[in-house]
Amino acid sequence: MLDSLVSKLPSLSTSDHASVVALNLFVALLCACIVLGHLLEENRWMNESITALLIGLGTSVTILLISKGKSSHLLVFSEDLFFIYLLPPIIFNAGFQVKKKQFFRNFVTIMLFGAIGTVVSCTVITLGVTQFFKKLDIGTFDLGDYLAIGAIFAATDSVCTLQVLNQDETPLLYSLVFGEGVVNDATSVVVFNAIQSFDLTHLNHEAAFQLLGNFMYLFLLSTLLGVATGLISAYVIKKLYFGRHSTDREEVALMMLMAYLSYMLAELFALSGILTVFFCGIVMSHYTWHNVTESSGVTTKHTFATLSFLAEAFIFLYVGMDALDIEKWRFVSDSPGTSVAVSSILMGLVMLGRAAFVFPLSFLSNLSKKNQSEKIDIKQQVVIWWAGLMRGAVSMALAYNKFTRSGHTELRGNAIMITSTITVCLFSTMVFGMLTKPLIRHLMPHQSTTTSMLSDDNTPKSLHMPLLDGEQQDSFVEFSGSHHDVPRPDSLRGFLMRPARTVHHYWRQFDDSNH
Amino acid sequence: MLDSLVSKLPSLSTSDHASVVALNLFVALLCACIVLGHLLEENRWMNESITALLIGLGTSVTILLISKGKSSHLLVFSEDLFFIYLLPPIIFNAGFQVKKKQFFRNFVTIMLFGAIGTVVSCTVITLGVTQFFKKLDIGTFDLGDYLAIGAIFAATDSVCTLQVLNQDETPLLYSLVFGEGVVNDATSVVVFNAIQSFDLTHLNHEAAFQLLGNFMYLFLLSTLLGVATGLISAYVIKKLYFGRHSTDREEVALMMLMAYLSYMLAELFALSGILTVFFCGIVMSHYTWHNVTESSGVTTKHTFATLSFLAEAFIFLYVGMDALDIEKWRFVSDSPGTSVAVSSILMGLVMLGRAAFVFPLSFLSNLSKKNQSEKIDIKQQVVIWWAGLMRGAVSMALAYNKFTRSGHTELRGNAIMITSTITVCLFSTMVFGMLTKPLIRHLMPHQSTTTSMLSDDNTPKSLHMPLLDGEQQDSFVEFSGSHHDVPRPDSLRGFLMRPARTVHHYWRQFDDSNH
Repeated sequence: MLDSLVSKLPSLSTSDHASVVALNLFVALLCACIVLGHLLEENRWMNESITALLIGLGTSVTILLISKGKSSHLLVFSEDLFFIYLLPPIIFNAGFQVKKKQFFRNFVTIMLFGAIGTVVSCTVITLGVTQFFKKLDIGTFDLGDYLAIGAIFAATDSVCTLQVLNQDETPLLYSLVFGEGVVNDATSVVVFNAIQSFDLTHLNHEAAFQLLGNFMYLFLLSTLLGVATGLISAYVIKKLYFGRHSTDREEVALMMLMAYLSYMLAELFALSGILTVFFCGIVMSHYTWHNVTESSGVTTKHTFATLSFLAEAFIFLYVGMDALDIEKWRFVSDSPGTSVAVSSILMGLVMLGRAAFVFPLSFLSNLSKKNQSEKIDIKQQVVIWWAGLMRGAVSMALAYNKFTRSGHTELRGNAIMITSTITVCLFSTMVFGMLTKPLIRHLMPHQSTTTSMLSDDNTPKSLHMPLLDGEQQDSFVEFSGSHHDVPRPDSLRGFLMRPARTVHHYWRQFDDSNH
Repeated sequence: MLDSLVSKLPSLSTSDHASVVALNLFVALLCACIVLGHLLEENRWMNESITALLIGLGTSVTILLISKGKSSHLLVFSEDLFFIYLLPPIIFNAGFQVKKKQFFRNFVTIMLFGAIGTVVSCTVITLGVTQFFKKLDIGTFDLGDYLAIGAIFAATDSVCTLQVLNQDETPLLYSLVFGEGVVNDATSVVVFNAIQSFDLTHLNHEAAFQLLGNFMYLFLLSTLLGVATGLISAYVIKKLYFGRHSTDREEVALMMLMAYLSYMLAELFALSGILTVFFCGIVMSHYTWHNVTESSGVTTKHTFATLSFLAEAFIFLYVGMDALDIEKWRFVSDSPGTSVAVSSILMGLVMLGRAAFVFPLSFLSNLSKKNQSEKIDIKQQVVIWWAGLMRGAVSMALAYNKFTRSGHTELRGNAIMITSTITVCLFSTMVFGMLTKPLIRHLMPHQSTTTSMLSDDNTPKSLHMPLLDGEQQDSFVEFSGSHHDVPRPDSLRGFLMRPARTVHHYWRQFDDSNH
């Protein structure tokens, strides 16, 4: 009886049976990532990203063994999937959950690290590979290729570090690492695009200024689009639902759709979707979030966190599973030495390129600060440097974009670059990632003790969702302040403590004039 | 400067610019559906489904005019998209939000309507088309085709009616229409598959029994799989997170993934994913939901409602946009009379087929009830009959599966069946859908007055999310009862009022023995 039924369901008639198996396995693996990640939380080496990566690699090896070396991955890494579906929720959630006060207070430093730093890092890596690659036999690259390699390896992946840092205890460090991560992602994609679309044969001063102009233009317009979409969503939800019988699912759905729309609009106008959706998230958490009902508020906060969490786990699992694709390693097996050399050079340049801006820029930033507590001390500088050494999905996606156009299995240089990117990503995420917890504990011993103290506390959420709780409190102060026009102790205190006119201060002024 | 930048972003290099435009337009249209749907809520003819359908049709016409008749749709209706991504959240949410007490109290009646009723309806339609289609010149169909047409048009779409019915005021009617809708979906897909995989040339008693056996087997196994997945999720979340510091995003992510896994596992084993995910939803809302933190609880309730809501809007928008695809209408334009005749015949048979089981089965069901308030009166029978006249996405998906295999633009019969299905879906959803509100107000005048009274009340949510609030209360009673072992007034009252041993009663016994 079973036999007569084991025909494919109509739902799957156009797709094959294999894809259903793959989807099942993938969802089951995601579940495994969550459960194992939770169980290993206390472990001093592991974190969720590494767990997902290891599970992905393990599955890949298993499939390789079962299929006897014929196949090794269930799903091929697709740029589209990454940039259109997985990245937006992560970046949006970053903007939605960030502590706005800290972020805008350190705005200038974050921009220095994120924008200038990425360009410095890109330049160092480009110069480095130009020197070293000529000595190795790995095919011909032109200036555009070298610049692209610079941009690819300038894209950091600070997810690992953020899982370890605590926003409540080291707010300055957290906001710097976090803010830099977002701006860095945007910058490297923008630089990468600018290089791709630019005629590099006639590189002169004029062209360089044009490149800079492009960059500024992209940056400003993307930010404006994000802010505009966020404000429109706040206005629509306020007009439609405020005071009327509200339907939570509509509010939540509208917020999700508008956020996604901002990203896709940016892509449509060839702007930086990452920047747009990040600022849209900030504006939405500041304005829209206060116009929805309480349950919608709780729902959106947690839903965005969940979606972002799932997308992250998905990406790491995906990278892990795709890494062992045998097609890509065919060239490498002919000359393993070259591949190891290339990966080592790249890894070294990544470390050098990051050091080349973190320490000088920290020095510059410290010069401008008078208050000792706001200066970035040498230990914090090391943590910031370390936090950006990991390379992840953005690097992978950019590398795929650059080096698979002409068929990576055919051109030797392309094949080596793809496998080297995978190697650098895996190595940096796993080795550096595993060392992150011990390193931070070593450099900042007070943090780990406080963490263990808090673990025994009865308020568990404040530890694991520091973003949520801290921010919520933060927002409620602003909320009550701006709506009732009573003197705000919080704002006053901030005012007395920081007479300097920061972005955050201007924003407050704007808010006050609108209520 | 803009020109040098309007090159495609790397994210979209493999997909074309047109698909980004389409995605943008689609997301914007979804936003429009929500906003317009909300604004038209008070309208006596409209509801969200019809709004989405009309917006879809409008967009289709606009694109047709702009492209001067060359193209009319942005996205082609894909069965996979529907069955793998859009249907699961809708059905899961249905199970998650259903009032379990009402559902299980009327379990037998719901099964009568859903399973037997669908088979009766399918038989009537099959017999009807066999008679009528021979007289029309629409190509050759065999018995399998006629049976498939019966199954296709036996699949109801009660979304429209449920948007109008109120769970708190007409609980019996609501649970009957709702329960029947779910079981009907499952039944028609199961019947459709059974027909597709069966050798119909040797139809005898033995084969008929085998078909029945298959059906029972599918039904039981699918239900068991759903219940098992739900229980496992409850167990895992309880073991992992109960008492430990819980991370809400992990709980929410696990519930989502496990629910989806149950659906995909059912598909993998060629079971009915719809039934599986429905029962998984019921079990999850009964057990898993009580093991998560309060904010996770609120989040999951609203997230599932939102996802289901978005999927519904998506489907109606999609059906509306796909309906005017000119390819499909080429054959029809040659002989518009035949197409109108086929559509009219099908529409008539749908009404007849539904009447053929609603009234007799209601009579049977009434015979077994002693309490007058539990009997289905004639007005309620008319509403139940009406509620299942709409045809929607399930019919479309099945029709596409059946009639596009051999290329619907080539075979005349296939082309006519596809366009007739679209016609029946559009006509029934729009015309019958628009008449639903007035009809229900006419048949049950007390409901509309109570509704308008409640609108002025200060508890707006209880009106628009009757499922949530009612259920939440319901669950909390069970929760407190089962966890503290105090006498439960609710259970006691139910016991005194209904001495008959219902499924719900057995379930309570099971729960009590486990605490």
